[in-house]
Amino acid sequence: MPITVTYRLRGPVAEAESRAHALLIEQSVETPLSVANRYPFVREHLLGRVEAVEAMGDNEALVRLALPEGVAATDAAQLVNVLFGNVSIHEGVTLEDFSLPGDLLAQYPGPRHGIAGWRQRTGVTGRPLVCSALKPVGLDVDQLADLMAAFAEGGIDVVKDDHYLADHAFAPFEPRVKKMLEVTAHAAERSGRRTLYVPNLSGTPEQMRRQAEMAQTLGAEAVMVAPMLAGLPFLYELTSRHLSVPLLAHPSFGGNGHIALPTLIGKLFRLFGADAAIFAGYGGRFGVSPATCRAIADAARAPWGALKPALPVPAGGMTRERAAELVRFYGPDTMLLVGGSLLEAGPALAEETRRLVEQTAAQA
Amino acid sequence: MPITVTYRLRGPVAEAESRAHALLIEQSVETPLSVANRYPFVREHLLGRVEAVEAMGDNEALVRLALPEGVAATDAAQLVNVLFGNVSIHEGVTLEDFSLPGDLLAQYPGPRHGIAGWRQRTGVTGRPLVCSALKPVGLDVDQLADLMAAFAEGGIDVVKDDHYLADHAFAPFEPRVKKMLEVTAHAAERSGRRTLYVPNLSGTPEQMRRQAEMAQTLGAEAVMVAPMLAGLPFLYELTSRHLSVPLLAHPSFGGNGHIALPTLIGKLFRLFGADAAIFAGYGGRFGVSPATCRAIADAARAPWGALKPALPVPAGGMTRERAAELVRFYGPDTMLLVGGSLLEAGPALAEETRRLVEQTAAQA
Repeated sequence: MPITVTYRLRGPVAEAESRAHALLIEQSVETPLSVANRYPFVREHLLGRVEAVEAMGDNEALVRLALPEGVAATDAAQLVNVLFGNVSIHEGVTLEDFSLPGDLLAQYPGPRHGIAGWRQRTGVTGRPLVCSALKPVGLDVDQLADLMAAFAEGGIDVVKDDHYLADHAFAPFEPRVKKMLEVTAHAAERSGRRTLYVPNLSGTPEQMRRQAEMAQTLGAEAVMVAPMLAGLPFLYELTSRHLSVPLLAHPSFGGNGHIALPTLIGKLFRLFGADAAIFAGYGGRFGVSPATCRAIADAARAPWGALKPALPVPAGGMTRERAAELVRFYGPDTMLLVGGSLLEAGPALAEETRRLVEQTAAQA
Repeated sequence: MPITVTYRLRGPVAEAESRAHALLIEQSVETPLSVANRYPFVREHLLGRVEAVEAMGDNEALVRLALPEGVAATDAAQLVNVLFGNVSIHEGVTLEDFSLPGDLLAQYPGPRHGIAGWRQRTGVTGRPLVCSALKPVGLDVDQLADLMAAFAEGGIDVVKDDHYLADHAFAPFEPRVKKMLEVTAHAAERSGRRTLYVPNLSGTPEQMRRQAEMAQTLGAEAVMVAPMLAGLPFLYELTSRHLSVPLLAHPSFGGNGHIALPTLIGKLFRLFGADAAIFAGYGGRFGVSPATCRAIADAARAPWGALKPALPVPAGGMTRERAAELVRFYGPDTMLLVGGSLLEAGPALAEETRRLVEQTAAQA
């Protein structure tokens, strides 16, 4: 069974067929056919074929290639390489979608916890989870602890580090994680409900492995990683070998439309083990359409082999005032990430947080 | 001293100024200014500023931001995050260029061997190096050895694995590397000149570290990595902690123009330790302009702090017939990578290789 890959080609439709054949060579043998055809094994197993070329108006076409599974099956980097390696360098080509044969898909366990894991850890059922962020970068541990205390007092489900929080001198990783967990534990003693804190891992793979180990040892019950910064193969390594708690994926460095966002965030991040995935929601400060957001959320939650569903997390300019609309749009299996607009409340942060959680619950 | 970052914005020039201010917030505090301004340390050290907005016609503008160094200085992932993290998700934004303050630049040793390292290992002076590739993927170790023997007999300087060669069952990493090194050693005994073999590392960081160790133990004198597949922070970790031999960077998964190629290949790859960098050359099968190729080669070789120059390696449809033109265009401190068109020679591969090397030398 081949891998099926769909690319969107911008440019004259009359050239789409020949471009499709050039991309097929690029993504398989990467030599003139006369060279590849000399070797029977290569000719039989590594050439692939153009399955369809469909014009989408005058200046765009979708092409579907069947690519050989053998090259991609070796490791996570080769899978990405076969899906969108050299072809990414060609002008006007987007990776639109892909599907994997069952045995290749079965190599990837995907989310270890999935949506159920987030619900189990927060105790939230029947409504979207509500999440906020510790920011701006530059706050010290005590200032972050004040924010965390207010969020927890307001009854929020999840609080993540800003993706700029790393191991900075002004809020180092270990004391930060330790303190945030103390604050959430203390708040839980009073309220009976624990806010889940999600520290951000940053650095080289070696540094991030150490941070993952430290966070888990300190008692963190989830971590955040930006897979495109860290490298997709490392996302897979981290979730399959080094991490026991759920992973929240951050879209930083993910680009806009080079890989279609539903495919990148809803499929690749999930395939390599993300239990939840943040994405820029429509109506915020990123120019993303409702249709794209729907497709991202659908991809993250859709049935896909034995893979658990991942929790879609719209973000980037969400507000409390939009809670009802967002719940209607995304449905209950979602986590609403409201950051900056909540922080604007200042001393009323706990109260504003409580209202956000209540409005989300009321709508569900 | 701030980090200076230049973005190219596509879209109405009238909106460029306000977009520049939005990107500034995105790439620094990522909260409303009213929130950031509450904290004196944040206000003073983490806000950055818009330095210039320059219209380039009606529908494009270059904006230059000064971004705070403190966030980026912590680790390699945060540097990329500050240069092009969330901003990459915004529509119509390209990372055009960046410059780092001296103390931040000094954190990165860059190429450990640089151009001089390749010359020292190959013994080639005064002319471009000549390189080819073992492909197509699917050949077994003996078939690859036949190609390697012909390349070596033809007197080529460097032969790299195809970027699709990983640890496949049909040509596993360890026996492949071992055999290729035997073939080049054997050829060197007869000719007195050794062809440098560059095995490709692939997989997760853990797998690639093991392969790097194995390759070095077996005697390989260089390795290849695709930094965008592997993750930029891992390129830095590999070159700064795990690797003693030169590293050749492959552009797979690097995209086309999302990050301007001279900045990605000539600057980011070099900053994180690539000693040579392959890129799609003009006049080949990728639609890259001569001006872009010139800029990539210039960036890789330009004086930049204490960083050694990296060897630019044009590829992707180069031919022997173009050798003279390519030498004139790129100058002597270049490596010409001629793959598929050389392999078309079939049984005349050694002879065709010899002609390519001779023509390259004659022109220099």
